[in-house]
Amino acid sequence: MTQQIRVAVLGAAGRMGATTCAAVEAAADMELVARVEAGQDVAAAVRGAGAQVAVDFTVPGATEANVHALLDAGVHAVVGATGWTDESRARVAEHAARVNAERERGLGVVIAPNFALSAVLAMRFAAQAARFFESAEVIELHHPNKVDAPSGTARHTAEAIAAARRGAGLGPMPDATETGWEARGADVDGVRVHAVRLRGLVAHEEVLLGNPGEQLLIRQDSFDRVSFMPGVLLAVRQVGSRPGLTVGLEHLLEL
Amino acid sequence: MTQQIRVAVLGAAGRMGATTCAAVEAAADMELVARVEAGQDVAAAVRGAGAQVAVDFTVPGATEANVHALLDAGVHAVVGATGWTDESRARVAEHAARVNAERERGLGVVIAPNFALSAVLAMRFAAQAARFFESAEVIELHHPNKVDAPSGTARHTAEAIAAARRGAGLGPMPDATETGWEARGADVDGVRVHAVRLRGLVAHEEVLLGNPGEQLLIRQDSFDRVSFMPGVLLAVRQVGSRPGLTVGLEHLLEL
Amino acid sequence: MTQQIRVAVLGAAGRMGATTCAAVEAAADMELVARVEAGQDVAAAVRGAGAQVAVDFTVPGATEANVHALLDAGVHAVVGATGWTDESRARVAEHAARVNAERERGLGVVIAPNFALSAVLAMRFAAQAARFFESAEVIELHHPNKVDAPSGTARHTAEAIAAARRGAGLGPMPDATETGWEARGADVDGVRVHAVRLRGLVAHEEVLLGNPGEQLLIRQDSFDRVSFMPGVLLAVRQVGSRPGLTVGLEHLLEL
Amino acid sequence: MTQQIRVAVLGAAGRMGATTCAAVEAAADMELVARVEAGQDVAAAVRGAGAQVAVDFTVPGATEANVHALLDAGVHAVVGATGWTDESRARVAEHAARVNAERERGLGVVIAPNFALSAVLAMRFAAQAARFFESAEVIELHHPNKVDAPSGTARHTAEAIAAARRGAGLGPMPDATETGWEARGADVDGVRVHAVRLRGLVAHEEVLLGNPGEQLLIRQDSFDRVSFMPGVLLAVRQVGSRPGLTVGLEHLLEL
Repeated sequence: MTQQIRVAVLGAAGRMGATTCAAVEAAADMELVARVEAGQDVAAAVRGAGAQVAVDFTVPGATEANVHALLDAGVHAVVGATGWTDESRARVAEHAARVNAERERGLGVVIAPNFALSAVLAMRFAAQAARFFESAEVIELHHPNKVDAPSGTARHTAEAIAAARRGAGLGPMPDATETGWEARGADVDGVRVHAVRLRGLVAHEEVLLGNPGEQLLIRQDSFDRVSFMPGVLLAVRQVGSRPGLTVGLEHLLEL
Repeated sequence: MTQQIRVAVLGAAGRMGATTCAAVEAAADMELVARVEAGQDVAAAVRGAGAQVAVDFTVPGATEANVHALLDAGVHAVVGATGWTDESRARVAEHAARVNAERERGLGVVIAPNFALSAVLAMRFAAQAARFFESAEVIELHHPNKVDAPSGTARHTAEAIAAARRGAGLGPMPDATETGWEARGADVDGVRVHAVRLRGLVAHEEVLLGNPGEQLLIRQDSFDRVSFMPGVLLAVRQVGSRPGLTVGLEHLLEL
Repeated sequence: MTQQIRVAVLGAAGRMGATTCAAVEAAADMELVARVEAGQDVAAAVRGAGAQVAVDFTVPGATEANVHALLDAGVHAVVGATGWTDESRARVAEHAARVNAERERGLGVVIAPNFALSAVLAMRFAAQAARFFESAEVIELHHPNKVDAPSGTARHTAEAIAAARRGAGLGPMPDATETGWEARGADVDGVRVHAVRLRGLVAHEEVLLGNPGEQLLIRQDSFDRVSFMPGVLLAVRQVGSRPGLTVGLEHLLEL
Repeated sequence: MTQQIRVAVLGAAGRMGATTCAAVEAAADMELVARVEAGQDVAAAVRGAGAQVAVDFTVPGATEANVHALLDAGVHAVVGATGWTDESRARVAEHAARVNAERERGLGVVIAPNFALSAVLAMRFAAQAARFFESAEVIELHHPNKVDAPSGTARHTAEAIAAARRGAGLGPMPDATETGWEARGADVDGVRVHAVRLRGLVAHEEVLLGNPGEQLLIRQDSFDRVSFMPGVLLAVRQVGSRPGLTVGLEHLLEL
């Protein structure tokens, strides 16, 4: 039998953390060695437990410090907490590079804004397909308690579509609208994004791509936070062989 | 064999008119007796042909005068031309009532903004279902040459949903949006309406209704103008037994 | 303030029963007066608690006896348990009629195979629309642990479509299939029904209706058992004014 | 201005051929130099017109001979006609290799079973995504005049999904079905494929991929044969730089 990966979960008392603990315990190739909660000393906890990989589902105010502590402790990090900026990511990348050089280590950090495989794949496929179609729009649908519109995922998807179109030399999409622009959604980098808020829904995204006589539709549904677990476990398995900082689950999918 | 209905088509040279001529010719219980084009004397043409019912697919500037001429000529009218207002409809209703009273006739006029059965049924079902759901939104999708947004059908659907909610004493829908309102579509009577413009599409509408843990989705697709023909033929068959003005195909469906 | 409805829940320890208890407690116009579990004397429990309405989410082997006991105890019944047959329903109808006649009561029993409003409305709308379309098919989609195919709801929907087509004098649907019938789904009364089994899904149904150039699609999604609660509460509110047996939530919707 | 590509169309009188002629004429970088119809000498026609590329939308009985004639005439071939087998493709590959070696040419032949970009991309994305999901099923939807089920595209998609699952070491999908297998569609290499036949539809395919708590749906709609034209023109532009036989438009997309 192969060696199990020894995993610590930071933010273990939160909803995502608890779900991650359950998923790690259920994985045959992993062992949950530490549940770390707010207020605990992260470095001491992961060292004491002999963790090889730590999954961070804490909060924006804690996650960067946690990752630095993990790097100092020689533990790979998989991060699902939000609140990261270009600056905080750059500090982590620099720290990881320095540690790996000084100590001849191959420590990896994977930060992913979305661990749902369906969401990551939808975004990737939309970007790949975009240059082949005259028109592209994005509809995201969420529960009505969401305070921001459009969703970050929809915004990223639209930006990726826009970049692909620019790369292919495509101009603006056809649109003869003269009246009623308020029904045409938000303009994200030239791509129209529509946000639906409906009781009963969780988190969903549709990308519509159109040419004369044909349509390609890519839709992604997240019904439950367990949908993040296959992506988290995949990152836990791969982070050890990806030294330095990796941002985005798509880089681990070998598409 | 039963008697065939003798049908004239006004605007016979246009796209909808030509499609109607073909549909009437293909219907076993109808006979196409006149193709009337712009510039012809409508009353003379329908009388000369012995038409019982005339279908008007002319233009906004001609259709009201045509209907008055048909009433004077004693011919039932089925109208798919656009451009009607509350005032022009009121004048036709008054004229029909007067003719029917004076001459002891039962002349009927059916004016329908949309003859697609799927569109009419979608609107009707959305209105019927609306009072049972916390949330309701409308997405309409059309080809990118359309100049107005949202579509008239989507606007009517939203208004019917709003009326049903008011009738049931429902308040505003849940919506925690704080930022990004431009992605939330147009507000039609309190119902959010989103307009997608995509090359390859024709005319489509989705109504989404949500409750905790469930969704009802009603979608309608018009791929081709032949989709209007079942509704037109149904109106031709029924207009003779519906004296006076009827607005909307839904009243002929006996739901 | 209006009087609250005093509600007992039978099978209160089960998943549906517990969800119902929570929903009744959250409803401003209801009071949860008894949680009855397997092994308890139903009549004594509901009488002792002064219940006016009892909701039965027990098991096939217990539900009919429960309803008879409730009728004898003078309590209205709302039944979501499965396992009912034409015979057991007939016995309940006869019992309710006798009790109401002898004691000058207006006791009601509502038995519903599906309390999800979206599912009930989807079935109803499909039946109403069916006579206007050449083609109709049903796709049901469920989690892969489901042992039977197609679902009871899909089967009922297909039967309702078939009945509506017969009533309208429609013949068989167009279908030129010569090879590959095994891909064409089950034949339920002349209507093709397809069953998809997919990890991540819960319970979903699509009805597709087609005419030349147009499609009407009615889709229903049940993501969670809380979706049954609006229908259950609606039945609790109405059962007191519907003496005798009512089968199917659709009769309470006043469509 | 860059040189225009000189294009001949074989089967120019057929529906696909005529659509291709119109598309070539509308393309700024191409010139339509020959419309070749049944009975004409293909080699003489293309040589006489000075064609560089020929598009073949003829019939199964003619297309292989046409391609051999084009190779002998030194003209690149883009083939959308059906009826190809492993054997006929092998003969063309061998012929192309021999001509290119003997005459130091770089003649290319592109044979594509489906030129709709949306269909080709849907198949490709389904295959790429398949190894990340527990469940996958395919639904294809067509007009009711289609004689075979399931469609060739759906069959190929299912085979590609099955191959990707095998490659990733995935076992059979979860499926607890005990009764009602006839509703579960055709088994294509372990992947369930469902065929819907509905008046009003043209050619559509949905791939559903499911994990706990999430779904990825890839849908493709072909509303009209003009949808094949972007793919045909792309092949015309690229065939000159792809010596030998290429089977499948996906190889030209540089995904």
